[in-house]
Amino acid sequence: MLVLITYDVSTTDSAGQRRLRQVAKTCLNCGQRVQNSVFECIVDAAEWTSLRLRLLELIDPEQDSIRFYQLGNQYKNKIEHVGTKSSLDLEGPLIL
Amino acid sequence: MLVLITYDVSTTDSAGQRRLRQVAKTCLNCGQRVQNSVFECIVDAAEWTSLRLRLLELIDPEQDSIRFYQLGNQYKNKIEHVGTKSSLDLEGPLIL
Repeated sequence: MLVLITYDVSTTDSAGQRRLRQVAKTCLNCGQRVQNSVFECIVDAAEWTSLRLRLLELIDPEQDSIRFYQLGNQYKNKIEHVGTKSSLDLEGPLIL
Repeated sequence: MLVLITYDVSTTDSAGQRRLRQVAKTCLNCGQRVQNSVFECIVDAAEWTSLRLRLLELIDPEQDSIRFYQLGNQYKNKIEHVGTKSSLDLEGPLIL
């Protein structure tokens, strides 16, 4: 299933920048960064439980906001992109 | 239905800041700002067609990225928020 993760963090201080880097690194293990603080992760239920807990450890809930959107398995026709940085097809064939 | 709109724009220049303000203002007509550049809009099909066109007029596709996610009508159990700035229930009773 696809989980969309949007993360709002102040990057005016170095601690916020570090949290954003850590969140990005964690999400990139199972997905892609489609915008600066928006990530799409393909996970099964067990992976999602683990990923969610890890993210909640990384963020500062007093300062940051993180939102999770469950897009399910039939997500391809639910997403439209316009502009720069179009995303990869995570489940498509890898062409080198 | 709920449409999630994520907008990636450089706000280091005043033109980018202006575009973000315009996108925010447009989205706030039919929804709420849940993060700095993430908006949730409740629209029917006709309203969505109109909103989408308006947003595509506002952004600069050479510099910005905008993504639309269709969450459908049964969206309430698909969204989780952690941290600051929890969002309003757009369809709940208005308590003054």
